[in-house]
Amino acid sequence: MAPATLRKAELHASVGDPVLDTMNFLNEITHRYPRAVSFAPGRPYDGFFDVEDIFRHVRRYLDHLAERGATPAEIRDTLFQYGPTGGQIRELIAASLREDEDTDVRPGAVVVTVGCQEAIFLTLRALLAGPQDALLVSSPCYVGITGAARLLGVEPTAVPEGRDGFRCADLEAALAAEKARGRRPRAFYVVPDHSNPSGATMSTAERHALLDLADREDFLVLEDSPYRLVSPGRRLPTLKSLDRDRRVVHLGSYSKTLFPGARVGFAVADQIVVAEDGRQGLLADELVKIKSMVTVNTSPLSQAAVAGMLLAADGRASEWNTETAAYYGEAMRATLKRLDECFPQPGREALGVRWNEPAGGFFLTLDVPFPADNAALARSAEDHGVIWTPMSYFYPQGGGEHSIRLSVSYLTQADITEGIARLARFITAEAARSR
Amino acid sequence: MAPATLRKAELHASVGDPVLDTMNFLNEITHRYPRAVSFAPGRPYDGFFDVEDIFRHVRRYLDHLAERGATPAEIRDTLFQYGPTGGQIRELIAASLREDEDTDVRPGAVVVTVGCQEAIFLTLRALLAGPQDALLVSSPCYVGITGAARLLGVEPTAVPEGRDGFRCADLEAALAAEKARGRRPRAFYVVPDHSNPSGATMSTAERHALLDLADREDFLVLEDSPYRLVSPGRRLPTLKSLDRDRRVVHLGSYSKTLFPGARVGFAVADQIVVAEDGRQGLLADELVKIKSMVTVNTSPLSQAAVAGMLLAADGRASEWNTETAAYYGEAMRATLKRLDECFPQPGREALGVRWNEPAGGFFLTLDVPFPADNAALARSAEDHGVIWTPMSYFYPQGGGEHSIRLSVSYLTQADITEGIARLARFITAEAARSR
Repeated sequence: MAPATLRKAELHASVGDPVLDTMNFLNEITHRYPRAVSFAPGRPYDGFFDVEDIFRHVRRYLDHLAERGATPAEIRDTLFQYGPTGGQIRELIAASLREDEDTDVRPGAVVVTVGCQEAIFLTLRALLAGPQDALLVSSPCYVGITGAARLLGVEPTAVPEGRDGFRCADLEAALAAEKARGRRPRAFYVVPDHSNPSGATMSTAERHALLDLADREDFLVLEDSPYRLVSPGRRLPTLKSLDRDRRVVHLGSYSKTLFPGARVGFAVADQIVVAEDGRQGLLADELVKIKSMVTVNTSPLSQAAVAGMLLAADGRASEWNTETAAYYGEAMRATLKRLDECFPQPGREALGVRWNEPAGGFFLTLDVPFPADNAALARSAEDHGVIWTPMSYFYPQGGGEHSIRLSVSYLTQADITEGIARLARFITAEAARSR
Repeated sequence: MAPATLRKAELHASVGDPVLDTMNFLNEITHRYPRAVSFAPGRPYDGFFDVEDIFRHVRRYLDHLAERGATPAEIRDTLFQYGPTGGQIRELIAASLREDEDTDVRPGAVVVTVGCQEAIFLTLRALLAGPQDALLVSSPCYVGITGAARLLGVEPTAVPEGRDGFRCADLEAALAAEKARGRRPRAFYVVPDHSNPSGATMSTAERHALLDLADREDFLVLEDSPYRLVSPGRRLPTLKSLDRDRRVVHLGSYSKTLFPGARVGFAVADQIVVAEDGRQGLLADELVKIKSMVTVNTSPLSQAAVAGMLLAADGRASEWNTETAAYYGEAMRATLKRLDECFPQPGREALGVRWNEPAGGFFLTLDVPFPADNAALARSAEDHGVIWTPMSYFYPQGGGEHSIRLSVSYLTQADITEGIARLARFITAEAARSR
């Protein structure tokens, strides 16, 4: 007999998502040109991390349990057994949110997840019950929200960002259009601070307007903000901290603030859910049920490492990020400075090159006067030794064809200097080519 | 404004799954009667586990990387960064399958997952593309397969087990019925060894017949077998080791063999997938894509602990299970012996009590002469101090109303002696009550 062969066209449509193939293309390019300077990966910088610390962090959490009266057998169980599906460190996370983010929720509203991605997935699964339910996303957007939606057979509705990021008026128009089509907007996903991919940050006024709109139009806001605490300078309030009406599900990540290898994130879901028989619970309880069918629970070992890090910093995640925020801030400033030097005014405008100037985060957007597609990326890597991400990857319904995303998080100052010089040569060559 | 309130009926139907509520009921009962002997939880026994070992296991893996030439920076990256979505320890898992299970697959066919549950979820998502695609399950079945299917809006089709477990003829009839309804059977899920919940084991002849049927009728077999290596005595070959035509996706768990707190499982998916343009890959590659949208990757820290344990046992998982298999075997034998003593023949038959006699695993099935429902469970806990699981929880389309599941994995010999005595008093009282 011949071995079983499956036709890809007969598998679930999500595996044919072009985003996955383009990401593979980017990985191949990165692999094929190891000496290129790459502005592509959104990797956290790991120079401040020490492997030995992991052991200390886990031990600190176990000592903490002992101090709080756990017996050796209970401590053993904590690491050995499955543990509660909602998580073992909900109290510590809730406490850190009070300290770091002025957010006061009880531990039962927190669900510990396998990274923020699982928090996204669980929330979408709970809220999107049928084909009439619409998910809106600020666009361009993180591929993880689009991917999670497509796994559930949902095509997100893009709400285009303006040059300065999200505008509430555009969302209002998109909501009206959805309703006119007979659909029910359930949730709006946004990265309000130093967004991936655009680098844009939502103003305080827009934050208030968004919450008012959510209350008026009866939808939830899914707030994903992994770059806040790793950005220098003053932080605007989170949507969740401004949320008086429990309109915000906060999707939390420790991948940038502590370490990605923990794979620990969380959802804050304090919305009240009323069953037909009148019994009330929280949306968090429903997310826990879904999690029991996806991953059962988040590794207690990983949770112990995260808990140990929080305990080591007086219960705050922010304390770990002073050095990294400064590092990323310097990388961003150096990138912007080099761009300024390589594309001086007034020629810049004639060339058709411009970029935004994020005050934090990992990313910025650069508009170029030619299609920034995979073919251009291949020429950039081959002829100029510089790699970047086409912004078109991040538009669920098309767009961004003349923009690129630059990530600065993982580069040294020397890489940035050399990389932007190469990028300038590439852009100049492409502009000449397309003329 | 009043806080946002969601109606449960408007959330995804999976959160209303009655199985989740019954599991909650079971948890409540367990919580309310802490002094009852509980035959309910399928928890692995943790008496042979030492917290300090975790540190040694992780360190062993890091040393292994160093011995293989990894630099300190590379080792740091391995624990700190996200890591590959398919997993960091695929080679070690593939090697352990050769040693333990006579299964020869290349590392690229292995996907490391957040427990076996994620492996189940990814596989179902890949294979169930639309409403015409049918999932069949040996019934009664593990709640994790039903739950994962319902998250995807799929109602599994139950293939009833006979008294001695799975019969291929019943599956064949169910396949024909599905096809007659215009549906396409894509996969059949089964726990061939010491099944959860029934305790049944599939004979070697049925295993061969099942693989022949899968090849003839063109579906995949999803093999989940967490209790094999923790059972005493001779093991029958896995379906995967008998699989000549790549008909079997093996869903692997380390929760019983190593420790549940790792949350590390895996899928072996070496099926060939052909794209429209003729390019070929493996089903594992498609599962990796889906995983990138669910959990991104499995915690490198957890993977390091598992890898260290495999390395400590010459690359085998089985080596860790000699003591535990003996422990579980003694618990099962003691339970069967006590049942024999408490329900002597010939009265047993007149009473309408009978049970199966698994040679391994955590579970056995006991038939009783009254409805073994939640009300009976509450009386059992309150009046007799003994807790068990209604078998009806495990039937996707009804059944098992007069059966209970007994789990023996977490009890001492003294608990078993006392617990079965209490159970006998409960059953005698209920039988009198229902007469």
